Amino acid sequence: MDAERTEIGAIGEFGLIAELTKKLETKQEGTVLGVGDDAAVLQPKSGMQTLVSTDLLCEGIHFDLTYSPLKHLGYKAVVVNLSDICAMNGTPTQVVVGLALSNRFSVEAVQELYEGVRLACTRYGVDLVGGDTTSSKAGLMLSVTALGEAAPDRVVRRSGAKAGDLILVSGELGSAYMGLQILEREKLVFKEAPGAQPDLTGHEELLERQLKPEARTDVIDELVKLEILPTAMIDISDGLASEALHIAAQSGCGVKLYEDKIPMSEKMYDTAREFNLDPTMCALSGGEDYELLFTLPQDRFEDIQNHPMFSIIGHLTEDAEERTLVTRNGMETALLAQGWDGLQADS
Amino acid sequence: MDAERTEIGAIGEFGLIAELTKKLETKQEGTVLGVGDDAAVLQPKSGMQTLVSTDLLCEGIHFDLTYSPLKHLGYKAVVVNLSDICAMNGTPTQVVVGLALSNRFSVEAVQELYEGVRLACTRYGVDLVGGDTTSSKAGLMLSVTALGEAAPDRVVRRSGAKAGDLILVSGELGSAYMGLQILEREKLVFKEAPGAQPDLTGHEELLERQLKPEARTDVIDELVKLEILPTAMIDISDGLASEALHIAAQSGCGVKLYEDKIPMSEKMYDTAREFNLDPTMCALSGGEDYELLFTLPQDRFEDIQNHPMFSIIGHLTEDAEERTLVTRNGMETALLAQGWDGLQADS
Repeated sequence: MDAERTEIGAIGEFGLIAELTKKLETKQEGTVLGVGDDAAVLQPKSGMQTLVSTDLLCEGIHFDLTYSPLKHLGYKAVVVNLSDICAMNGTPTQVVVGLALSNRFSVEAVQELYEGVRLACTRYGVDLVGGDTTSSKAGLMLSVTALGEAAPDRVVRRSGAKAGDLILVSGELGSAYMGLQILEREKLVFKEAPGAQPDLTGHEELLERQLKPEARTDVIDELVKLEILPTAMIDISDGLASEALHIAAQSGCGVKLYEDKIPMSEKMYDTAREFNLDPTMCALSGGEDYELLFTLPQDRFEDIQNHPMFSIIGHLTEDAEERTLVTRNGMETALLAQGWDGLQADS
Repeated sequence: MDAERTEIGAIGEFGLIAELTKKLETKQEGTVLGVGDDAAVLQPKSGMQTLVSTDLLCEGIHFDLTYSPLKHLGYKAVVVNLSDICAMNGTPTQVVVGLALSNRFSVEAVQELYEGVRLACTRYGVDLVGGDTTSSKAGLMLSVTALGEAAPDRVVRRSGAKAGDLILVSGELGSAYMGLQILEREKLVFKEAPGAQPDLTGHEELLERQLKPEARTDVIDELVKLEILPTAMIDISDGLASEALHIAAQSGCGVKLYEDKIPMSEKMYDTAREFNLDPTMCALSGGEDYELLFTLPQDRFEDIQNHPMFSIIGHLTEDAEERTLVTRNGMETALLAQGWDGLQADS
């Protein structure tokens, strides 16, 4: 498959690491020492707090290399962690990347993956300051830990919301999930007729949301400009319903969302219908949108009601047991979080 | 095998995380917010630098569950990262732990693993402040990122040594490797005669060095007491030879080690002979000792020559090409680093 294939064994672990890190520049003022020693050395800005978040991405669970280009995968692995830093109202500053891979992967494949890691770092102005590269018995696994910073009085937790607070979300929801549905469909078609060309035309928007999501650092900047400090915030990785319930539970409130307020793109809506899926369900439970969900006191309503970046989709309620979705026709139904897919069988 | 076995699917991802983190206390002054939000929040001490290191441990590569108890594995995964913080002359403060596991593992198994993680955190006074738990297609994988702190003028890199500097090492070498040889031998015996009881008596010292290594935070404290600041330092994970060559290369020097100065325990020496292995080779290339290797200017010789914690095993030389081991009989041979084992086949 590769035009050129160099076995990792041929250059060894140290050779591989040298290869991957040779073009690494650091740009953050706080990065004193990056890759190449036992640990990275960082100088936190005086008075700032440090944010730390970690995520694992496993082949066959979080991604499928049949349709995930390695470069996109490296990009996404970084972005999902930066999104967690944004969810605390912080600014991402550095990442460290762990990589476990089997001999199925060549040096060129790892380089492609790292190209994506590097691209995300450049795009978001964060430094890649460390990592670990090792072999695995099966498949590919990425572990990213992101560091960020925030002034102590700007850090936003999930637990700070009060009953009556408005619930807002950035961007549009459900697109990443529909992107995945398209990829899964084309994978099935390809399995049945290996010669078939995948039909992805016209779906670029949805595919990009799935394969190359972005972290909403622009939202964090905009909140500063608007002089808005959310009372609670979370990023949408598991789906709107699940995340709204997290904020409600950790803030000791109930939650009421309005179906007609949930932002969805026309493309997502139409594609969901084409797949015989309920667009609202895709938005509520699809996940991987990496939009920011946050709460604000009602007296900020006028400051934000017409802002193109945000949608007001509901509010928190007094009754901590309340979990309500008000449908388009005014009916009240239970707001349910989609469960975990459960563990995979050892293969 | 388990007296009690709860499937992870039965309690779900959030249930599992709640279960694992319910007894978590944080003790570091700098830990503002631990597990339970999108990111941990830390308040670095004013003027201190932050150290960050990450490591992956993969089943079948770094550990074998045939003989690694899960509790020991959790302990070791934390310790090897704390050792990296020590290698920068820093004090470890927090860890985040990523865990990927297949449905072969029960809730009880994961609890046992976390028991070890928690034990290491308590032993070293570091806080577990975050993590990620996910399913994997095959086997178990642990990813740990450790954070630490050090005053800017106390951080020690690999690159600061000068020609003429003494090379010192803490503790004794080769024991962890010999522990592994014993475990591998008993595994083979067991494979051939499944009823056989493993014969591990008398080998406790070596087995503990392999299964439950310690990070030398006591060495870091002792260096402060002795008012010693190493010119370069590294921890021994890949073996003395490999690490000494790293310091030499990154400091632009050559290296000369003396075989008769390399510290080995009597038990390790005798067991190596019993296995028909060269004890010196075990110490030079065995790895996983997690002792600290460091350099000092020659004028500190008298301050440290009789210290029971350290052995002076050689010095750095002007000629950057020099890689010499002076044998017991005075012969000069090439000091070679054992290579990487190479990538494993996809299973």
